[in-house]
Amino acid sequence: MNIDSIFQAAQTAFLDYKNLSGKEKGHFLETLAEILESNRAAIVPLAVRESNLPEGRINGELGRTTGQIRLFANLVKEGSWVEATIDPAMPDRSPLPRADIRRILTPLGPVVVFGASNFPLAFSTAGGDTISALAAGCSVVYKAHPAHPETSRKVAECIQQALSACGLPSAIFTHVEGGIAEGQALVKHPLAKALAFTGSHAGGMALFHLANQREVPIPVFAEMGSVNPIFCFPQKLEKENDTLAKAFVASLTLGAGQFCTNPGLIFVPEKQAQNFELAIAAELHAIAAAPMLHEGIAKAYYDSIQALEARNELRWVKVADPKHLINGSPALAEIKAADWLKHPLFHQEVFGAFGLMVVYRDHAELLDIAQQLEGQLTITVWAELEELKNNLTLVNLLQEKCGRLLFKGAPTGVEVGHAMQHGGPFPSTTASQTTSVGSYAIKRFARPIAFQDMPQELLPEALMDANPLGIWRTVNGVMTMK
Amino acid sequence: MNIDSIFQAAQTAFLDYKNLSGKEKGHFLETLAEILESNRAAIVPLAVRESNLPEGRINGELGRTTGQIRLFANLVKEGSWVEATIDPAMPDRSPLPRADIRRILTPLGPVVVFGASNFPLAFSTAGGDTISALAAGCSVVYKAHPAHPETSRKVAECIQQALSACGLPSAIFTHVEGGIAEGQALVKHPLAKALAFTGSHAGGMALFHLANQREVPIPVFAEMGSVNPIFCFPQKLEKENDTLAKAFVASLTLGAGQFCTNPGLIFVPEKQAQNFELAIAAELHAIAAAPMLHEGIAKAYYDSIQALEARNELRWVKVADPKHLINGSPALAEIKAADWLKHPLFHQEVFGAFGLMVVYRDHAELLDIAQQLEGQLTITVWAELEELKNNLTLVNLLQEKCGRLLFKGAPTGVEVGHAMQHGGPFPSTTASQTTSVGSYAIKRFARPIAFQDMPQELLPEALMDANPLGIWRTVNGVMTMK
Repeated sequence: MNIDSIFQAAQTAFLDYKNLSGKEKGHFLETLAEILESNRAAIVPLAVRESNLPEGRINGELGRTTGQIRLFANLVKEGSWVEATIDPAMPDRSPLPRADIRRILTPLGPVVVFGASNFPLAFSTAGGDTISALAAGCSVVYKAHPAHPETSRKVAECIQQALSACGLPSAIFTHVEGGIAEGQALVKHPLAKALAFTGSHAGGMALFHLANQREVPIPVFAEMGSVNPIFCFPQKLEKENDTLAKAFVASLTLGAGQFCTNPGLIFVPEKQAQNFELAIAAELHAIAAAPMLHEGIAKAYYDSIQALEARNELRWVKVADPKHLINGSPALAEIKAADWLKHPLFHQEVFGAFGLMVVYRDHAELLDIAQQLEGQLTITVWAELEELKNNLTLVNLLQEKCGRLLFKGAPTGVEVGHAMQHGGPFPSTTASQTTSVGSYAIKRFARPIAFQDMPQELLPEALMDANPLGIWRTVNGVMTMK
Repeated sequence: MNIDSIFQAAQTAFLDYKNLSGKEKGHFLETLAEILESNRAAIVPLAVRESNLPEGRINGELGRTTGQIRLFANLVKEGSWVEATIDPAMPDRSPLPRADIRRILTPLGPVVVFGASNFPLAFSTAGGDTISALAAGCSVVYKAHPAHPETSRKVAECIQQALSACGLPSAIFTHVEGGIAEGQALVKHPLAKALAFTGSHAGGMALFHLANQREVPIPVFAEMGSVNPIFCFPQKLEKENDTLAKAFVASLTLGAGQFCTNPGLIFVPEKQAQNFELAIAAELHAIAAAPMLHEGIAKAYYDSIQALEARNELRWVKVADPKHLINGSPALAEIKAADWLKHPLFHQEVFGAFGLMVVYRDHAELLDIAQQLEGQLTITVWAELEELKNNLTLVNLLQEKCGRLLFKGAPTGVEVGHAMQHGGPFPSTTASQTTSVGSYAIKRFARPIAFQDMPQELLPEALMDANPLGIWRTVNGVMTMK
């Protein structure tokens, strides 16, 4: 099947699918969740073998995947997500009458989704991007990640089963395999209306520029990674030295450090640094090297570490052991804030379980750090309440640099809920006004349309006077369920 | 003052301004509206002289400008626009506890706004883009349109008076004059966080590519124009021939045809075409040539007309009279749909009071037209209810091509309300997921941030448990005012 036929079919399918009710779309998504669960025994071993991730993690990830699918199913069944907004006609308004204007979110069209290697289920074939696009009413042309082709094919089969069970056209979802050239061809196709991607900075930026150079540019929702710094304050460390060291190491080494929200950078005050480092080192030495997703990622990890080892600003607390090949060996180095501030190399993500501990002198240096920090998915602040109150300027500044600001715990373990924001200022994403996790992710795949003086019987149900869907709407500027 | 100092000051001002309460921002905006009104006698003659637009129109536009300002003042005083979303902690959830996560929209930072020549007040210095950015909590670096420098300076003075009256830093708004080089330098500055523009396709696309080639790309909200087609159906024309001809000509020639929503294209069925054309011609001959905004625009208008006159597919119903120089002389030509479909030239906007009447044979040709149509701000359908019901496929397809779909009246006279969508698929804008008119315009200048386990007393008021602002929020996925 060639790419043009794929998109023609995706467009035709879309023009029907977009008019499905929320209940029908929700039913399709629920059917998919059930089919995935009933295929657990087939899917899990494939994903374990292709990703090198442990079975427990993959089992959990399948649960997360179906959990996400049900979140979006419920969202579209309830229906208020479409932001229905009604300004009824005012025929007697002076000097000019007001027309009847009704606004709703409408799906974009066929969208291209690229799978992520680090989430073979939850951010791949039936992952967050695909599902939020389908929930919005888009058809999806899915580019499988070459690191887990069999897992991807199996999940794609489940999607086809669900479409078939619901009597929906198969072209609502198309599974495409291939390399860079195939991916580029998908992004270039005139019928593609948006692009979602989770992966490396280089990959994301190549697609971003490609999409912007199209005759008709399309939005690019690329989630490209982040160093996710943790800022530690003195009193907090004095009180919770060992607990925080444990929390840091657990988050840093989770899944061999291959999470988007992996905390690769930790800022520590001079006076508490030694104690904290000792506790971290003790934890870290107990963690065995763990297999990474594939050899390319392991090689990139050790190459990045080697580049850092060549710099004499760093003191190594735990060196990585490159003899491990596919296994990622956790590593930790320390650097003075003054040196960290000087070199952009030290600000960059090392994908894997490498942590950089930056030792700062004082409040002024912290402000310099915050100023220079690049955009991040997350920033974590470990401080006593008093310390926060004494550093409001810093907290204010840190909000400019991230999509999620944490005051407890670690940034890994991204909750899939309504309030989640997973997406921050560039370079962590290309679209900081959106999220790739949580129910707001659906908004990426829709745009507003206003109907002016449309006959009642032709309006989408969400905009009819009688509010037959019983959703929340903004009428004359006021939120109401009437 | 150099551009770097301007942005440094705008950034410093922003870091304070963003934390103002909705009430404080609303008070500032209301103060500005009052100051603009009290300067009406000074502003109106300047704008009339610099834009060649009639006094009645400019007086009305000032009213529209202050009306917009009050719309946004009310929006931020009420406060629910920030989409406060709260997923409270679930410490006992199994297998893992849920952290407390609270999401809110936060302003982007200093934004660059380019003024529009065709709205010297409502889309210029204190126009919709500036005001929605200020309402969101952004500081604004404003690039004045060189066609109305004195008007712009005067309005900028009013903004400074309002800032000063409210005790706010002057760098919340900076007025910059200059040409293309100055505009580009603003867009390139690292502290700029977004860009709003209303103007030509060439201008908008140059800025779009510049913004995407920055080291840190920024969103570009460019509203670049549209041909705003009207689709006429036989029965409707049979019944309302003269009324519709009047409505079309009034909309086409309003403000010398210099509105973004000017209907430059009208699709007419073969059988009714002659009668309709006669009625249009009668109306059109009664309309005198009217002065355009400036000589460059008048020259571009006549150049475009000349390019069309060179094509023998067109039959001229009313020719433009180029001896009018600055005056735009209305013109109308007719073309067969089969010819229109063949040449992209006929699909393009002619900025001014030029209308192209496209005569179609049948339903199949209408579907071809809809398929080939570029993205539009608006599409209008003039049809009887029965005709709509018999053409649902067409109506479905037209929704893919526009931001606003009208079933009565004409597309000019864009209502500034809550349900308005002014922005459509490319090339009408670079950001079809946003609007530049109406209360949703504020969302362009904000992005979501989530706070995880933030101490109550440090949370923005909109996210505190007690809901001290009394706004609508989504708590555990349910809309509530509690």
